[in-house]
This record gives sequence, C-alpha cells and structure tokens, in this order.
Amino acid sequence: MTAFPTILVLNGPNLNMLGQREPEIYGSETLADIEAACAAKAKELGLAVDFRQSNAESDLVTWLQEARGTVAGAIVNAAAYTTTSIAILDAVLVCEVPVIEVHLSNIYRREAFRQGSYLSKVAVGVICGFGAHGYVLALEAMARMLEAGSKA
Amino acid sequence: MTAFPTILVLNGPNLNMLGQREPEIYGSETLADIEAACAAKAKELGLAVDFRQSNAESDLVTWLQEARGTVAGAIVNAAAYTTTSIAILDAVLVCEVPVIEVHLSNIYRREAFRQGSYLSKVAVGVICGFGAHGYVLALEAMARMLEAGSKA
Amino acid sequence: MTAFPTILVLNGPNLNMLGQREPEIYGSETLADIEAACAAKAKELGLAVDFRQSNAESDLVTWLQEARGTVAGAIVNAAAYTTTSIAILDAVLVCEVPVIEVHLSNIYRREAFRQGSYLSKVAVGVICGFGAHGYVLALEAMARMLEAGSKA
Amino acid sequence: MTAFPTILVLNGPNLNMLGQREPEIYGSETLADIEAACAAKAKELGLAVDFRQSNAESDLVTWLQEARGTVAGAIVNAAAYTTTSIAILDAVLVCEVPVIEVHLSNIYRREAFRQGSYLSKVAVGVICGFGAHGYVLALEAMARMLEAGSKA
Amino acid sequence: MTAFPTILVLNGPNLNMLGQREPEIYGSETLADIEAACAAKAKELGLAVDFRQSNAESDLVTWLQEARGTVAGAIVNAAAYTTTSIAILDAVLVCEVPVIEVHLSNIYRREAFRQGSYLSKVAVGVICGFGAHGYVLALEAMARMLEAGSKA
Amino acid sequence: MTAFPTILVLNGPNLNMLGQREPEIYGSETLADIEAACAAKAKELGLAVDFRQSNAESDLVTWLQEARGTVAGAIVNAAAYTTTSIAILDAVLVCEVPVIEVHLSNIYRREAFRQGSYLSKVAVGVICGFGAHGYVLALEAMARMLEAGSKA
Amino acid sequence: MTAFPTILVLNGPNLNMLGQREPEIYGSETLADIEAACAAKAKELGLAVDFRQSNAESDLVTWLQEARGTVAGAIVNAAAYTTTSIAILDAVLVCEVPVIEVHLSNIYRREAFRQGSYLSKVAVGVICGFGAHGYVLALEAMARMLEAGSKA
Amino acid sequence: MTAFPTILVLNGPNLNMLGQREPEIYGSETLADIEAACAAKAKELGLAVDFRQSNAESDLVTWLQEARGTVAGAIVNAAAYTTTSIAILDAVLVCEVPVIEVHLSNIYRREAFRQGSYLSKVAVGVICGFGAHGYVLALEAMARMLEAGSKA
Amino acid sequence: MTAFPTILVLNGPNLNMLGQREPEIYGSETLADIEAACAAKAKELGLAVDFRQSNAESDLVTWLQEARGTVAGAIVNAAAYTTTSIAILDAVLVCEVPVIEVHLSNIYRREAFRQGSYLSKVAVGVICGFGAHGYVLALEAMARMLEAGSKA
Amino acid sequence: MTAFPTILVLNGPNLNMLGQREPEIYGSETLADIEAACAAKAKELGLAVDFRQSNAESDLVTWLQEARGTVAGAIVNAAAYTTTSIAILDAVLVCEVPVIEVHLSNIYRREAFRQGSYLSKVAVGVICGFGAHGYVLALEAMARMLEAGSKA
Amino acid sequence: MTAFPTILVLNGPNLNMLGQREPEIYGSETLADIEAACAAKAKELGLAVDFRQSNAESDLVTWLQEARGTVAGAIVNAAAYTTTSIAILDAVLVCEVPVIEVHLSNIYRREAFRQGSYLSKVAVGVICGFGAHGYVLALEAMARMLEAGSKA
Amino acid sequence: MTAFPTILVLNGPNLNMLGQREPEIYGSETLADIEAACAAKAKELGLAVDFRQSNAESDLVTWLQEARGTVAGAIVNAAAYTTTSIAILDAVLVCEVPVIEVHLSNIYRREAFRQGSYLSKVAVGVICGFGAHGYVLALEAMARMLEAGSKA
Repeated sequence: MTAFPTILVLNGPNLNMLGQREPEIYGSETLADIEAACAAKAKELGLAVDFRQSNAESDLVTWLQEARGTVAGAIVNAAAYTTTSIAILDAVLVCEVPVIEVHLSNIYRREAFRQGSYLSKVAVGVICGFGAHGYVLALEAMARMLEAGSKA
Repeated sequence: MTAFPTILVLNGPNLNMLGQREPEIYGSETLADIEAACAAKAKELGLAVDFRQSNAESDLVTWLQEARGTVAGAIVNAAAYTTTSIAILDAVLVCEVPVIEVHLSNIYRREAFRQGSYLSKVAVGVICGFGAHGYVLALEAMARMLEAGSKA
Repeated sequence: MTAFPTILVLNGPNLNMLGQREPEIYGSETLADIEAACAAKAKELGLAVDFRQSNAESDLVTWLQEARGTVAGAIVNAAAYTTTSIAILDAVLVCEVPVIEVHLSNIYRREAFRQGSYLSKVAVGVICGFGAHGYVLALEAMARMLEAGSKA
Repeated sequence: MTAFPTILVLNGPNLNMLGQREPEIYGSETLADIEAACAAKAKELGLAVDFRQSNAESDLVTWLQEARGTVAGAIVNAAAYTTTSIAILDAVLVCEVPVIEVHLSNIYRREAFRQGSYLSKVAVGVICGFGAHGYVLALEAMARMLEAGSKA
Repeated sequence: MTAFPTILVLNGPNLNMLGQREPEIYGSETLADIEAACAAKAKELGLAVDFRQSNAESDLVTWLQEARGTVAGAIVNAAAYTTTSIAILDAVLVCEVPVIEVHLSNIYRREAFRQGSYLSKVAVGVICGFGAHGYVLALEAMARMLEAGSKA
Repeated sequence: MTAFPTILVLNGPNLNMLGQREPEIYGSETLADIEAACAAKAKELGLAVDFRQSNAESDLVTWLQEARGTVAGAIVNAAAYTTTSIAILDAVLVCEVPVIEVHLSNIYRREAFRQGSYLSKVAVGVICGFGAHGYVLALEAMARMLEAGSKA
Repeated sequence: MTAFPTILVLNGPNLNMLGQREPEIYGSETLADIEAACAAKAKELGLAVDFRQSNAESDLVTWLQEARGTVAGAIVNAAAYTTTSIAILDAVLVCEVPVIEVHLSNIYRREAFRQGSYLSKVAVGVICGFGAHGYVLALEAMARMLEAGSKA
Repeated sequence: MTAFPTILVLNGPNLNMLGQREPEIYGSETLADIEAACAAKAKELGLAVDFRQSNAESDLVTWLQEARGTVAGAIVNAAAYTTTSIAILDAVLVCEVPVIEVHLSNIYRREAFRQGSYLSKVAVGVICGFGAHGYVLALEAMARMLEAGSKA
Repeated sequence: MTAFPTILVLNGPNLNMLGQREPEIYGSETLADIEAACAAKAKELGLAVDFRQSNAESDLVTWLQEARGTVAGAIVNAAAYTTTSIAILDAVLVCEVPVIEVHLSNIYRREAFRQGSYLSKVAVGVICGFGAHGYVLALEAMARMLEAGSKA
Repeated sequence: MTAFPTILVLNGPNLNMLGQREPEIYGSETLADIEAACAAKAKELGLAVDFRQSNAESDLVTWLQEARGTVAGAIVNAAAYTTTSIAILDAVLVCEVPVIEVHLSNIYRREAFRQGSYLSKVAVGVICGFGAHGYVLALEAMARMLEAGSKA
Repeated sequence: MTAFPTILVLNGPNLNMLGQREPEIYGSETLADIEAACAAKAKELGLAVDFRQSNAESDLVTWLQEARGTVAGAIVNAAAYTTTSIAILDAVLVCEVPVIEVHLSNIYRREAFRQGSYLSKVAVGVICGFGAHGYVLALEAMARMLEAGSKA
Repeated sequence: MTAFPTILVLNGPNLNMLGQREPEIYGSETLADIEAACAAKAKELGLAVDFRQSNAESDLVTWLQEARGTVAGAIVNAAAYTTTSIAILDAVLVCEVPVIEVHLSNIYRREAFRQGSYLSKVAVGVICGFGAHGYVLALEAMARMLEAGSKA
C-alpha cells in the first residue's frame, strides 16, 4: 500500500446523471461535485480516493475484484443494482476490504422495490438520506475504521 | 432536434435472434423486418426512427440517458430485463421523454416470472401480444401523443 | 358474416360516466366520443362496430356469448371487472373470437388492486395507457389480425 | 337540491332478508324497520332519505352514478360486495358526494374473507357493529359533515 | 310444499353454453340434457326439480333467497362465481336448506383461480369431476339426506 | 355504580398533541375540546365520562383492568397501539364491559401498518373517520347499548 | 380380469376407528358398515370390491402399484395422507386406472391443513361430505365411467 | 432556543447496558462513553446535546413530543422499538424537527426481525454499523443540515 | 449471591387479574396462589424466589437487566408481550442467566397472534399448557439445570 | 385399568439413535437412559410406563389408537413427524386420553421447518428444551392432571 | 470396513415401478437396470454397492441409521419423500457418511411440489436430470470424494 | 462443426477469482485448474472444450446465442446470475443445444437468495456440490447424452 491509503468510491447506474435527474429526490449536486467533496475530505484525512461510475453491473464487479489487495476500503453506491445484484454482493466478498454502502436518498422512505439491499448483507455499515454529504460521512467512518485497524 | 422528431426504439436481450427463436411464440419476422416496418410507418407519420438492440442492460440504460433532450419519445421492448431492471426504470425517469412499452407476446399469458414489469411503472402505456405490429401501433400512439403535446 | 365484419366493443362499469369521472385519470372524452372515434376508424378499415356499455357483469358475459359465430372479434374494456371476473374470462373462451383488452389508463401504474387482470389470460393482446386512442389502436390491431387470418 | 337535502341509503345483497337471516349475527330488525328508523332520524335532522336495496352489484353502481349532483351524501352497506367490488369503489369516486360505510355486525370479528373492504378506501368513515342503530349514527355523522360543509 | 319435495338446481354463468364450450373440459352434453337427466332421476326418487340458469350473480342470490321455506334442498353449480361470490355464500346461509355443490370438471386439477370455493364453506358436500352425471349423484345424495332427515 | 353510569374514554399515545399534530389528518381540535364535547354529550345522555390519555401502553392496560366492575362501558382510541398491542386486547377481555373503538381518521385509507387492529377483535363496534365527532357518536352508541341492556 | 371387474377401495389412517372417532364429524357407522354397503352396491352394479385399510402410507402406495393391470378402478379415502402424500399421488399415476377421491366429511369446511389435497390433482373426481354414502356414490360414478369406457 | 442549538439524542431499551451486553455485536464502549463523545463533537460543532436513555417506549414518545419547538433536531437509536413502535413514528411526526436514525450494528446483517424499521419511514436519514462513532457522524450530518437550513 | 440461589419469576401484563380473567382458559388460581406454590416448591429445592408482575414492558426489561449477576435463573411468563417484545428478548440476552418460558395455556392451540414467541428464541426451554403447575415444573427444571451447572 | 395407571411414552424416528446423534443438540443420554429415568419417576408417582420407539409413522398412529381405553395418558415425542404428520394428530383425537408433547431440544430456536407442530394443536401442553429431563417433567405434569381428574 | 468400501444406494417410493411408470419422464430403464449399471461402475471404481428400494419412509430411515459406521457413503433417491421427509433428513445427520442426492428427472422443471428438497439441506451434492446415468455419476463423485478423504 | 464436437463451458461473475475467493466454500482450485481438468476429460471423451468466463451477463447471453448451430452442448455455471437472469434463460432457449447447469457448492445448503435458479427451468440437468469435479461429471453426462442422440 502507498503512503496514502486509497479508498475506492464506486457509483452505479444513472448516477452520472446527478444534478439533472429528479433533483427533488437526488439534489442539485453533480457527480463531479461529489467527487470533489470526496477528494477534499480524503486529503484532510490522509487518504486517496479512486472515484468511478458505470452503468454496467459487470464494471462494478470487476472494479471490486481489482480492489482486492490494492485499496484500503471501498464506498459503494450501487444505485439500482443495490436490490438486484448478487454479483456485486459476491464481489464484495471477493475483495476482502471493508465496504460502506451509501445512498443519496433515504431508500427506506421510497418504493418497496428500492428496499432489500443485497449490499447491506456484506457491508460494514450503511449511510443513507444525507445526499452528497453521505459520501463525506462514509470517508470519515472509513478513516476511523482504518485507524482502529478494524476489518469488515 | 431535426426537422423530423426522432423516436428511439430500443430492443433488449435476445431480440437480435428473432425469427430463429421460438417462432411459435415470437413469430417468424426478424428484427430487421421490424426495423423496416418501423421506418416505413415513421416516414408516414413524419418521424425518424433510431432503432437499436443490445444484450447489455447497461447499453439500454446509457441509450435512454442519451435520449434526454435529443429525442421526442422512446419505444422500449426490454425483453428479459422488463421484470428485473430497476436501472432501466431509473433511466426512463432520467430521460424525461414519453416511453411506450412493447412486447411481441402477451406476457400476461406466459410464465409468472415474465410478469411484474418495472418498466410499466414509468411507461405512458403498454402494448403487448401483437407481434411486430405492436411496434407500429406504438409509433402511431407516440405520434398522437406528440401531436397532443402530451408528456409522460 | 355480413359484407363488413363486425367488431364487438364492450365497455364495463362506470365507463358510461367518462368525461365526468376523474378526468385527470380518464381524460375528458365521453363514451360517445369514443364510440364515434371507433366508428370512424372502423369505416376506414372496412369494419362495422357494435359498441355497448353496461354496469352489469352478466351483460358483458351474455354479449360475449352472443358474439360466438356472429362477430369477427371483440375489444373489451372490462373496467372494474378486469381483475375480479372469472365469468368474463370464461365467456371469452366461449365466444371463440379474438379478444383485445383495452384500458384508458396504464393500470400498471395504479393501485395494486387494479392489476392482475383475468382478461389478460385469454386476450390476444393488451393496450393500455393511451386514453380513447387505445380503442382505435385496438381496431387497427384487430384489422391486421383478421387480414392475417390469425385466430386467438 | 331540494329544501331537504337527500341522503341515499344503499343496501347490498341479502339485506332484504334481515330479521330472518342469522338473527344471532344480524339482529331481529327487518330492513323495513331500519328504513323507518332512518326516516325518523332524517326528519329530525332536516334530511330526506332515499332508501334502496338490491342483490345486484350493478344496481348499486348505477344508483351511485345517479347520485352524482342529486344527493347530498350516501350511506352504503354493501354487504357481501364490500370486499369484492371494485365497481362500487369506482362508482363512489364517480358520484363525488361523501359516502359513509355501515355494517350491522363488527366485520373485524368475523371471517377473514369479510375483511379488506374496498369501500373503506373511498369512504369518509366507517361505522360497524351497532346493528340497525349504525345507520342512525351514520345519518348524524352525515348531517354534521354537511353542516361543516365538509366534503369527502 | 307439494306432494313431491322440490329440489332447486341452480346453474351459474356460461353453463347455458354447455356442449359448445370447451367440450374437452365440459363434455358434449347440453344444459338441456342435464336438465332431462335430473328430471328422470328425480322422478325415480320421488322428487321434483326446479332447474334454472343465469349469468347474473344476483339471480342466483335471489333464487336461493326464494328457496327458503319452499324447497327441500338445492344443488348449485355456481361456475365462475364459485370462487368469487360471497353474496351466494350468504344466500345459502339465508335459505337454510341443505345445499350440494356440483362441478362438471374436477376443479382441483385446473387453474389455481378456480380453486378456493366460497360455496364449499357452506355446502353439505361437494361432487366434482363426473360431468353431467355429477348432478344425478347429487340428487341421490340429496334424497338420501332427506330420508335421513338430515339438515345442512 | 353511581347515579350516572360512567363511561371510560381512553386515548393512546400522541393524542395529547392533537391540534398541533398533522392537522390535515387529525383536525384542529385539541384533546381538551374532545373531552368537553364528550362531557356535554354525556350529560345529555345521563352519563358520566372519565376521560384519560397516556403515552404508555401499560397505563391503558391498567385503566382497563380498573374499569372491571366500576364503569358501564369504555370508548378506546388506542392510536398507535391499535395494531400492535395484544396487551390492550387482553385488558379489554379482562374488563368485561362493552368497548367501542374510535379513530379520528379513517384508518382504512391510510398506510397498511395502521390497519389490522387487535382492538377490533374484541370491540363491540368501530367508528372511524369522523374526527372528534366520532367520540360523540360512540357515546350515543354506548347509551343505546346500555339502554338495550346489551353486553359486549 | 374376472367376470366381475374389481374396484379397489382404499382407506387411510385412523379410518379403522370409525364409529368410535369423533362421531359428530365422521358419523356412527363403522368401517365394516361401509364395506358392507360397498359390497351390496357393487353386487347391484355387477362389480367386485376389494376393500382395505391401513395406517401406513407405504401400504396405500403398494396396493395402488399392485392395482396396475388387475383392477378396473380405485376409490381412495386417504384420510390424513390426503394433503401430505406425494407418494400416493405418484402411485395413482403408476396404477393407471381411474381413481375417485372420497371423504366422509366436507374437508373444505374444516381446518386449513385438511385442504390442498395432492390426491385431487390426479383423481378423476372428488366426492366429500356425504359420510358413508359417499363411497356408494363413488361406486355408481365408477360404474358409469366404466360403462362409458372412459379412462382417467 | 439557546445560543447553542440543542440536539436531543435518544437511546432505547437495553442501551443502558452497553459495554456489558454482547460486546462482539455492540462493542465495549459504554453509553457514558458515547455521551462523552457526543458532547465533545457537539462542542466542536457549536451544538448542545441532550442525551437520554429509557427502557420505556412511552418515555421516548414523550421526549420527542417535548422536543417540538425546543430542540433543533434529534438523533434516535430506538433499539428494540425500531421495528415495533408506531407510537415513536407518530411522535417523530409530532415533533417536526429533523430526526436521524442511528444503530450501533448493521441491522441489515442481523436477524430478519431486526429489519423493517418504522423509524426509517420518517427519519431524514439512517446511519448504522459504525458503533459509537455512528452518533458522531449523525451529529455532523445534523450540523450540516442545520447549516443548510434543511428541514425533515 | 445468597446461601439460597434466587430465581426471578416475572409475570407480564394482565396476569395480576388471574382468577378473574377468562377462568375457562386461565383457571381459577390467582397470581398470589401461584406465588405461594412457587415459594413452597423453591423451599423444597433449596432456592429463593423473587416473584414480580407488571403491566409495563419496560419493567420486565429493567428487572431482567437487574438480574444480571444477581440471580441464578429466571422464569418468564411474558403474557401478551411474548409475541411482540424484542426489547424483552434483548434483555434476556443482557441478563446472561438461563431463562425458562412459561405459559398457563397451550398457546399453540390458541389464536395465531399468540404464537411466534420472541422469547422462545432465547429461552432454554418452554413449558406451556399446565396452568399454575407449569411454574412449579419450571422451578424443577431450573433446579436440575443449576445442579448440572448448565448455562443457557 | 390396573392398580397402577399406565402412561404410554412414544418416541418417533431417529430417537433410537440418541447418544450417538448430534450430542451437542440432543445430549449424551441414550433412549434406554430416558426409559430408565421414566420408570424410576413413574414408580415414585404410582404410575406404570409403556415406553416405545419406532421410525414408522404408522406405528405411532396404531399405538395411539390402541391407547384408547387402555392407558391413562400419553407422552409423545414425535421427532421429525411433529411438523408433518396429520395422521398422528388424528390418532391423538382418536385415543381420547390427555397427551403431552415433549422435545429434547427447544425446537423454537432451531430451523423453521422444525416449528409448526401439528401435535401441539391437540396436546394438553408442551415441554421442550430440557433434554431427557423433559420426560420426567411430563410425567409429573401427567400425574398432577390425573389427580385433578382433568381430561384433555 | 471390508476390502471394498460399500456405497449404500437407496431408492424411495414407486421407483420399483420404473420402466412402467410414466416413461416419458422417467425413461424405460428398470430399477434392475440401474442396479446393474451401479454394480458395473462400482466394480470399476473398487467399490461395493448395497442397492435397496422401499415404499416406506421408515425403511429409508432405518437403512440410513444402519449405515452409520458400516458404509463409506450413500446415494439417495428419496423420490416422493424428497420434499416431505424430515425424518430422512435427520437420518442422514445420524449416519454421518457423505450422502449424494440423485433424481432421474430434473425436478426443477417439474411441479412446484416436487421442489424444496429437505434432503438437499444435508446432502454433499445433488445430481438430477440425467436418468439412470445420474447414479453412475454419483458413484464417480463419491469415489472421488473418498479418495480425497473428504467428508460431508 | 469440427471432427471433435465442441462443448461450450461458460462461467459467470467472480468465478475468475476462484482459489482466492472464500476457499472454505469454493475450494482452492483456480479457474485455470478447472479449465485444465475439463480439457483433459474432454480429450478422453473425444470432445473439444471452449472455456470462457465473464463478469457480464450480456457476454453469457451473447456466447449462448453464438452457440446455436456451432456447438454440441453447453455447461453453464452462471454463478450470481443463476437466480436473477431471465436473459440467460432466454439465451438457453435460443441456442437450442442441451445445457447442463453446474455449481461448485451445493446451493441448496446456502442462503435463500442463492436458490430458485432460472437456469434450472431450461437445463437438461443440474450438478452441484462437487467443486471442480462437477464440471468433469457434467462433461461425462454431456458425452453420454450426445451418444444417445438425446436433445434438451
């Protein structure tokens, strides 16, 4: 591992459209805004951030596989794949680093089909409902865990 | 937008095999036949058609994102992803144009796992059971909606 | 059969109140408007239309029985009986002509109790969400099927 | 509307047999007794009552349709149709007057199939378990609502 | 009551189409054939038969109400209303004579929606799967019960 | 028992906040207003009212136990405990006086988790959807029952 | 096969205790009484009866296997194994003779766990609720089927 | 409100036993440790903390009622009442301040009966799985929300 | 701990009404009778009994917390809280002494809502259906376990 | 009946393997040990014990039938047949003596398929989780019931 | 154990009828053919085969018990008992040798009631859909496991 | 097709990580080891193997489409897509060659979400629980089927 431990931040389908997409639910910040906020917070915490987005379930799976042995932790907003992807759940088990699940909205106040996260079954913890700030909170939680030497 | 408003026509997994695949259910027409029928009807209606197929859920998601602000409407036969893809549902919300759901067969007479469409929750309307002709009917419905200035 | 094949168009309970009833869902057209639109389209297609409405499940059943051997096809908007009437399902089997199911609204975006159509299990196809225009699309679909000599 | 606002009181299937039918559940009063009690109470409240019974779901639907614009409110004991009739639910929406649901017995203490009222989803309120007196209470509640100018 | 006790035989929706309707399920005998067979057997057993059919749930309800105190028993094939009509269940309770449920086909080998009879909850017994002969068996069972003075 | 029979009126959690809490659902009257309305109606009916509120399930249980042999009846709005408290159901069985269940709103039009009342399984009757007036109706129903000497 | 075709009559667990066991449900006739009634009726119909009872599921299975090619039909009251034994269902398929299911009581009025017969899925027909007389009716139905040359 | 806005921090049943109770799930920190951590973080953020614990559902309800108009927000770990208390859900609606739900463990990895939070339906957001640090994250999230002037 | 190990015996809501409450289910013995029987048996076994009752879930929770390190075991009849209280389940885990669940009636013969005990998931064993004697049996079982040095 | 009333003790499938089978669940005592413990306790209580085991459901059924009129009570550990055998439930009803259900382990802490006992629906009471000692407790409970002259 | 390790091969109900029973599902080979194929393959693998069939669940249970300590592994086709027998599941746990589950047909393409194997919960692996050849594959898999010294 | 018929062997998401991923479940062999074992066995059987892996559902779909008319059969371990992908089910129907489903672990002993394979509905057979050896068994089964000229 490098001087600065890297945190992989993964974003699932349609998150590239943030700012344009249903702002009453997801807010007006773009994904670039979130990336910038993560980078700033990471710097403050002595961490590096590897920030990615894809509409493809297989990209998220592959990136998590590649995280094995190369990153210190991962923050995952799997968006629509949260409740349907067992492949991502398996990839989290493969990567063997602590994973924190983040959602912009409070998914438990939304449609039933947005509940029942597979990711939650293998994540260390879940943060949802705080918009872009949720990523920042997740970075703080990750830093704290890394300090404590805790593992998922 | 061009002189002729464009209608995006999206086809999901295995629809590239039409004509070969279970013709007793799906008929003997190929996807190229359907594209030709759509093109002919669109011309008659003063519309352009952008006709695509992919086996990848992420392609359908990305194409719907790109439709935002560039097409007048979309006709979607999501095939096997109809009942499993929340990502496509979200992409329909992102694109903010009227979407019509089409199926070649009457899915409500088939196996239970082919029912319970996520797409139906965000589509303007549904047309199923009329084979290739369903696409033509959807184009007519779309034209009518555009005339009426109606939005999804 | 006469020179012009007849298509029976059946309308279930409360459809006589169209135009007055919840116009934000059902639109402002009256049932008479729909009948006129059907007649015009049928004439264009070389078909006759027998257009009826009843609040009684038994009328719909009896009319479908009488359709056996006398009409070329039927278009049925069973309204509230869609999800509760096995008697109408049986009558469709009795009449042995192709039946197309129509709904003004997209029932799949509405309350759960409006989903789970018995009629869909025996209809050739389903068209919903296009308001009064859905009847016209159904007539076109029927004409096409009759041309192709297809049977339910 | 006339000098005395009219309240439509509708009774569903088998209520014409009251007094004879399972008196341990429904009591010994006949439907005529209930009509008389309603008439007396209505007079006291400055209301007229239009009291009807039918075994046919379609009669109840039609009477509710006719209530639109002609009565001030409706009290409905849909009996066996309570848990099965979406057509009556729709007719309540059509009539656009406040509707109070009444049952002679406390249906929540009875068989599971007597629970799950469709009517409750559109009624202003529900009164059950008080036998014939429930109609009188419903008239009082209706009078109070009309005074307050409240609408369903 | 007359010299010969009367047995009411009720037939529900679409049974008027017997012989024409799906003969592979329901056989080739018409309802008139069944009536004749019932009349012959009843004569042999010293009973009269009052044989009726209606597509209307309310007719079946009303006929059962009228049976109270006027017939010795009833045989009911409620057809499609078997699994949906609580009104008929209530009417059986009102009529207070023994009721035997009959079906031409073995409904327990058919679609799930044809199972779960409300009528069975109040019938003395059930006979299904023997085609037209089931009515004759039901008359014999009824005669036996009447001899034994048994009540539902 | 005193010269005036006492009716216990119990109010469950958060009802002390009436008037402030979600007035679009619960109205603008306070619990004191309801108590006053009950007192006035009780006086008219020759009854005394013992009106109480608690946020604690155990208080409602204990008060119902104490009601045994000391009051003539009870009116209970268990609020949030309606669908979760078997302890209150048991206490109603313990108290052995007739109990009427009241709700300000029509709970059958609200979220699923507000339906499925345990209290309804042991109450004489239910009145819901009439706001504060529901208590007054319940007092009238209770008076009527006491006159008739009816017991739960 | 002999001059008189044989009908196997199988009785499941606890039916050997008839007459002693819960007579309010099962009547006062013993299994010997039923055997005698079957023998008498069979003689009248030109049939022989092979009447057996066992508490063991495997005996019922083996007897049905042995029936293959040796009997003309079987009447089966599987008692408690009705709703739990797939082995008996399979044995009915093995034996390839028409099977009629009989129950003394109307199982559809009893506990839920007595409903959902596996046997009904493969029986020609079902007769229940007529006590010992049900066996006699089943013999008549079987004779009629054999005459008609019908097979299961 | 004081110079420093107050955040109410509520802890439900058995949280007073932290440090002793199942430390492999809940960690070794005591509730006093968590209170101290909250106080320190609050001071840093310019907030005051009102930190409470009770085993009684009614205390949590009452404290939330009292929060109305007196605190700036609430952080609630309802522990065992999370999935059973509609009363607390109602109290959150009463208090009309933003509420953040916190859990020490990731409840979505635990037994099914610990999932399905009522509180989540009305909370702004949820933080779980980070042990005592989750409270600190919640305070940060609350501070951020208050800065942004956002309301629940 | 004293010379005589103490067994905490907890009784939930409405058990203070024993003897008065539904004696056909719960018997005629009072809670004082049960306490006396427990005291007598405990003396015989060389145990002390700390016998308590409360209508409040929080009292049961708190008493179980206090049991940690001070008693040798607990016998709990949680009554109506048996199937609804996760807080008591958690308190049993907190107290870390063996707990035996007791019910006066056989809850598995009663209403469905009285089944599905949370307590059973953490109790060593369950004794139900033996009335007051069940407590005595539980004391014997506890004594035996303590002798054997067994822990929950 | 003899001078010493006999208690039938029945053991179901695989209980003959006790001591060898999964001792962490079922303990190290053999079935012979349990029989000896039962004999000793029975002698102390003035009872005789008839102790049996079989892997066959039909043996358990037949032994319960034979118990009718010959034994004073029965203690049944039906093991794997507990949740699947309606035949044993029926045999308990046939035998008409009080039956106590015993399990070595606390089945309510085990897999879901080990819950939902049919036997519990007809047993007087249930004792589970106390290993071999549960049989001894059941004998005491039986002795107490016989003294009290109580019947199932 | 002998020079050649023995593999017990158990066959459940109706498998003795193979070749005669529904050959379109189960093929035309008899159970003797399968036994011969197993013997030949076993010889090739240096194994002995003990091949048995019974219609009785208890025989399968007993044979598995006897397998404990005497055979090296077991191959089990429990046929109809696959989805209903917890007793066989328990016997597999008792025998403590590796067990492979075999089915002639692919049970996952058949009726729902043939799915949900209890045996699968304790088998090392499952082979289904290959007809008689499935037994041979299972023997190979078993030989491989024994070589590897692997245990269930 | 070549001199040696080709068998397509498809591996789904995360199987590229075998050997590293949860070895206690999946074993220590890598996917390359499995490919080598398949190649060796195929050579022995006179078959060629085309061995592929992808994390993308669409790759598996496309490869199955391409298999149509070019390979003799397919062995598919769809991993996480087994229970979620209808697209793969459809592709199996498209390819029209026999497909065998393989899993390394016995999925029926694992989490519920790993059960309910869509692939099983269209596969010839299923082999699971034998680790890497399962692929070899599947090749043998395939060779046998091809010899027998059997088709899916």
